[in-house]
Amino acid sequence: MIYFDNGATSYPKPFSVVNAVQRSFGNFCANPGRGGYKSAMKSAEMIYNARSAAANFFNADTENVVFTSGCTYSLNAAIKGVCRLGSHFVISDLEHNSVVRPLEKLKKSGRCDYSVAKVTPDESETVRNFVNAFRKNTVAVICTLSSNVFGIMPPISKIAREAHKYGILFILDAAQGAGYLPVDMKKIDADIICCAGHKGLFGPMGTGLLILSNDVNPDTLIEGGTGSNSESLNQPEYSPDRFESGTPNVHGIAGLSEGIKFVETAKCENILQHENKIIKYIFDELKPYNSIVLYTDFYDGVPKSPVLSFNIKSKKSEKTAALLAENGICVRGGLHCAPLAHKKMGTLDIGTVRITPSWFTDEKDAEFLVNCIKKIAK
Amino acid sequence: MIYFDNGATSYPKPFSVVNAVQRSFGNFCANPGRGGYKSAMKSAEMIYNARSAAANFFNADTENVVFTSGCTYSLNAAIKGVCRLGSHFVISDLEHNSVVRPLEKLKKSGRCDYSVAKVTPDESETVRNFVNAFRKNTVAVICTLSSNVFGIMPPISKIAREAHKYGILFILDAAQGAGYLPVDMKKIDADIICCAGHKGLFGPMGTGLLILSNDVNPDTLIEGGTGSNSESLNQPEYSPDRFESGTPNVHGIAGLSEGIKFVETAKCENILQHENKIIKYIFDELKPYNSIVLYTDFYDGVPKSPVLSFNIKSKKSEKTAALLAENGICVRGGLHCAPLAHKKMGTLDIGTVRITPSWFTDEKDAEFLVNCIKKIAK
Repeated sequence: MIYFDNGATSYPKPFSVVNAVQRSFGNFCANPGRGGYKSAMKSAEMIYNARSAAANFFNADTENVVFTSGCTYSLNAAIKGVCRLGSHFVISDLEHNSVVRPLEKLKKSGRCDYSVAKVTPDESETVRNFVNAFRKNTVAVICTLSSNVFGIMPPISKIAREAHKYGILFILDAAQGAGYLPVDMKKIDADIICCAGHKGLFGPMGTGLLILSNDVNPDTLIEGGTGSNSESLNQPEYSPDRFESGTPNVHGIAGLSEGIKFVETAKCENILQHENKIIKYIFDELKPYNSIVLYTDFYDGVPKSPVLSFNIKSKKSEKTAALLAENGICVRGGLHCAPLAHKKMGTLDIGTVRITPSWFTDEKDAEFLVNCIKKIAK
Repeated sequence: MIYFDNGATSYPKPFSVVNAVQRSFGNFCANPGRGGYKSAMKSAEMIYNARSAAANFFNADTENVVFTSGCTYSLNAAIKGVCRLGSHFVISDLEHNSVVRPLEKLKKSGRCDYSVAKVTPDESETVRNFVNAFRKNTVAVICTLSSNVFGIMPPISKIAREAHKYGILFILDAAQGAGYLPVDMKKIDADIICCAGHKGLFGPMGTGLLILSNDVNPDTLIEGGTGSNSESLNQPEYSPDRFESGTPNVHGIAGLSEGIKFVETAKCENILQHENKIIKYIFDELKPYNSIVLYTDFYDGVPKSPVLSFNIKSKKSEKTAALLAENGICVRGGLHCAPLAHKKMGTLDIGTVRITPSWFTDEKDAEFLVNCIKKIAK
């Protein structure tokens, strides 16, 4: 199997991740925060350490790191947590359905409205597009770290700075990028970071992060038992308890913690460099072919993450992906849960074939992929 | 380690569960429903089979089984999914904070109101208490299958029948009980069943179920990418896609599926009989001690699940639990995220020590536990 679908979930996971999950069934198989006996304490301690590792990784405060079931949950919690009746949001035209669908629903129910700002190759223009979309009732900008389809990277820090001038929150969707792109909460000056655990951070599927700054205290999306203040009918006020109701995914968190350690050891910049090299090779090899459309040129001046979308002119993206699958290659064809981005790039009808490498992808994988694509494109 | 905290999470998990989770990192480590290649298809197939197994177990329809991150999420999704502005709910006085805290929050924000119906040893009286609490705007009754603190089992089918006479939905919280108490959706005539995956069903922590009848279509709690209808800014209308946004917890679901198989092989009735035998033994051994308060007599005519709460008169429940922990015994002391139930039983100040066995608990474990409690109670 030649795996080029790390944008969906990373594969393989490091051994340390798989081992941590397996060991958790013995070491941490007790409900943390809900028992005073040894294994429950060990479980709570592991979760504290994982929280602390994630906080360190994102340069956030430990108690502000919330473990979730995935980035979709995190984004819903962030959006609905800051939305008030009559709120307005500004999002980029690259956002995923996990941003657009919650907003669209809130809009339809009359609770909020939202505007879409265009990301262009000119950073100043992009920032201006966001600012021009601000209204008096704008509560938050939501912007992706990197397009999950095209790898385009909006100038997030600049957008955040402008948003803050108007008292508007900046919510970062780091699903695509965290683990190979630097995500420093304080440098970016993000108010909320939403992140998947199972992509660039190499954690298990079913894990995610919601990271809050000290300046924000969103409403809760779910409430329930937290093992704290149990006598009270009200949700605790303090983080992370306030945002973590119910039994945590102990096994998943144990794995995610090892995933973050793995990235820290390999180093983000090395991973990025490696993935960029793979993508550049593929790009350069496919560029001469007239029958292949490559989206988002790697060297057109727009910052871009190692995500490459392409199409073979005469073929639907799903068909190309299926032909590659016959050769044991895993890539995703079709739409990538991001209709806005596809509309922007004119691929809403045909979709794209997406190539997303990881730290584990090697040159031979890329060579095999390129040869298969060339054969199909002939 | 002598583990008597299966009410928090079951331990140990069957080998098949641990193996399935571990194997999932190789076999199913691709995002289901988001790729047409082999491992993504295998992943999707595994999830379909898990869904089908759960549907069969609860006598529900496959497409109406929704995988969630836990029972707290399921209950929030159920409650907020059927709540409209001005809705009224009726709950039992045994409900967990995962029911009470969401309702309390909705009440405080002016969106809904709720009443608490008393569960008594007289089933007819209990049913009457529920019916008396019904109002014209009551949308749903939420009732536990079994109290997580005292094991008391309200007459759920009778309550459901009365609720339906008034056009009121019946939502069952089966967190405590599913796996050893029979939960047949059609026999109970429940509209929604919320269930943990990591307790009686022996799945990993971080798994849960939301099971819907064909007569109910709640609003969504979160929206996002589903891998389906990707061109649309709106959440799909059909179940389970409508209720499962974002990458599923593939590893957890693989484990839960094996957990359900394990229960089906061991058989619910055998597990119940085994656990009842353990609890009866402990109860009978401790009953003669004046210094021990046993809650909910096993033979007082009220249907009861194998959950035993007790206190040593001179000691706080946390202290007793800590002393037992020193002997390697895992029990939970304090409040059990169920303040209503503690208030009902007069233990809101002191909490209780809770004993919850499982299929894996043997007589020697119970003997050791009993001897330790007797020593502490002296």
